[in-house]
Formats: sequence, C-alpha cells, structure tokens
Amino acid sequence: MTEPVIEFFWDPVSPYTYLASTRIEALALRVGAVLRWRPFLLGKVLEATGNRPNIDVPAKGRHMLADLARWAQHYGVPLVAPPIFPISTVTALRAGLAAEQAGRGPAFATAVMRAYWGEGRDISQAQTLLAVAAAAGLDGAALLAQTQEPAIKDALRSNTDEAVRRGAFGAPTFFVGEQMFWGNDRLGILEECLAGDLSA
Amino acid sequence: MTEPVIEFFWDPVSPYTYLASTRIEALALRVGAVLRWRPFLLGKVLEATGNRPNIDVPAKGRHMLADLARWAQHYGVPLVAPPIFPISTVTALRAGLAAEQAGRGPAFATAVMRAYWGEGRDISQAQTLLAVAAAAGLDGAALLAQTQEPAIKDALRSNTDEAVRRGAFGAPTFFVGEQMFWGNDRLGILEECLAGDLSA
Repeated sequence: MTEPVIEFFWDPVSPYTYLASTRIEALALRVGAVLRWRPFLLGKVLEATGNRPNIDVPAKGRHMLADLARWAQHYGVPLVAPPIFPISTVTALRAGLAAEQAGRGPAFATAVMRAYWGEGRDISQAQTLLAVAAAAGLDGAALLAQTQEPAIKDALRSNTDEAVRRGAFGAPTFFVGEQMFWGNDRLGILEECLAGDLSA
Repeated sequence: MTEPVIEFFWDPVSPYTYLASTRIEALALRVGAVLRWRPFLLGKVLEATGNRPNIDVPAKGRHMLADLARWAQHYGVPLVAPPIFPISTVTALRAGLAAEQAGRGPAFATAVMRAYWGEGRDISQAQTLLAVAAAAGLDGAALLAQTQEPAIKDALRSNTDEAVRRGAFGAPTFFVGEQMFWGNDRLGILEECLAGDLSA
C-alpha cells in the first residue's frame, strides 16, 4: 500500500501554522504518512477568497493572544507576541522553496516559524534569514540570492494559486489527496482520518 | 472550595454550538464545574463586533460542511444540513429563557439544537418549538406565550449585550470567570484549564 501524503501549506505569518509546525512531523510519523511542506502566501489566499485576518475583527484579535498562549502551553513550545505583526513573509517563503531544492525544506520552514513566533525575530530582514538558514544547515547567501530568481518567484505564486484552486482560504491548510483540513485545531481530526477512524 | 462555573453562550443557528452542546455536560461533570446555559443572539454579536458568518466566505462555507461531518462522526452524533440556513432563532432563544425559568433550560437548549442540526427541523416555526418543548418536559403553549413578554425579550438582549461586552464575537462562547473560550474545537483546552493543567 502506498503511504498517504500530507501536504502542509504554511506561511510563517500565521501563529497557528507555527503551532501546527511543532506537531505535524510527529503526527505524520505516527500514521505512517509522507509529509510535504509547501510554502504559500497567506495574504494572497485571503485576498483571493475574500477571507480576512483574525485581527480585522478587534474582539477576535484580542482573544487570539490568550488563545495562542494556551495552545503554546498545551504543546509546551515557546510563543511570543512578535514586535512586528503582520510582517512581510514573501522572502522567507521564497527562501523556503530554495531550501526545498537543497533538500532542507522542513528544517528551514521549522526554523523560520520558530524564529518569528518562538523568538520574536524580524524574519522580513535578510540578516535574520541568513541566521535561520545557517541554523537549518544551509548556505544563507546562496539561498537569499535564489529568492530573486524568477523560477522561485513563480513557484511561490503557483503554490498559492494551487491552494486556492483546491479550496484553501486560510492557514495552516493540510491536504490528504483532495480532503482538506484547516487549522492547528484540526490536527486531531486529521490524524483520526489518516488512522482510518473517520471516513469523512 | 467553590465549584467553578462554566457559562455556555449558545444560539441554535450555530452548528458548532450544537456539536459543543453534545459534549459540554459530560465535560462539566468530569471537572466538577457548574454549567450555566445562556441563550444569546449570534446575529447581533456578529453585527456588534464586525465579525461575519463563515458562509460569507464561499470557500469557508463549502469547507464547513466537510468539517462538520467529520466532527459529527468523531462525536458519534447525528448532523444534517438543515433545509433552511441560516434561520431565525429569536423565538427559540426566548423560549430557552422561559424554559430556564421553568427549571428546564438545559433540556430545552439541547433539544432545540438537536431538532435543527440533528434532525433538520424548522425551529423558526411555533409548531416545531411546541414539539421540542414537550420533548423537554415543558408546557409548549405557555412557553411560546412567554416569548412575547417584555421581560423575556429584554433578557435575551441583555445576555447578548453582556457577551459582547465581555469579549464574545462568535459561538459557542464559554466563560470561566472572565477567561473566554471560543469554539467547539476549544473544549479540550477548556477542560485542561478547568483541570488545572493550563494556567493561561
């Protein structure tokens, strides 16, 4: 039997995506699934679908801070309110695609989300991305150069368009085939589906 | 030590509130909390906070059906796509307040949410509410008469205003003191907080 594939669409701008990133690898291992990390630009997804960020509803934005703190404590992972939010993540995402080509996609993705949400570092800056790349075992200067290549720029647009076409409207978004799962809070349901405990 | 109180703000228009209603009583029992069912008008909460229903974002609305089916299967409870959605729930909510005065608030709330989301019945109709009231051990005719009383109308407005003032922007909303929890998908986090496993 072929191993199921979990596609994980991520953008480091999303704190719930960071939270999910701290659990998804262990989940994939438990259910024997292949995990495929796919950078996409959440801002464009919101724009294309008419969805809005949580902070556009002030009461929701205020609640989100308490909610995130609870999840971080529940998972036992660091979480800070980053000094800049929202932040431009387009270079970080392109670097994620370049890291993928170098065979270090998951390591870079994990590191860049942790840098922003776990440590409050400004991941829109080249200097931060260089350090994150190094921590993920990559040549940061080469990676940043690649973020200016048309093929990498196109790949990010293409991932984003594909996610929207397949039904995504937020982040994190997971696909198992064309079954879509949205949200860090759906990891339990995702795991049950992959374990065969849910047919839906 | 005083038992903690969980306030559960519910409106039967919300499918996730129905789902939560099938689990919250067992949860309260497990953590030794008192459960207080509080009807509120979700439409007014959305209006007051600038929040929007899921179905306003078409991709979100489409996904919601799959997501609800998974939760229903996970919980082992019936769930149908009701013939009318959204639906006016103001009479049902006022009846909920009248039922509360008769000491049957939880029974009525549970029954009316199950009638709509579990059985697809039109809970905007007096006939349906009469049957639901009877099933909850209430005098339906008396209950419906009470829904026209100014005190009941005021009580619904007052619950709704209070929820907004305390930070609510959607449903289901739970309060433990002034700690707010939003969503059926936060029952696990709510239980952990009540059990003392989370300090946040």
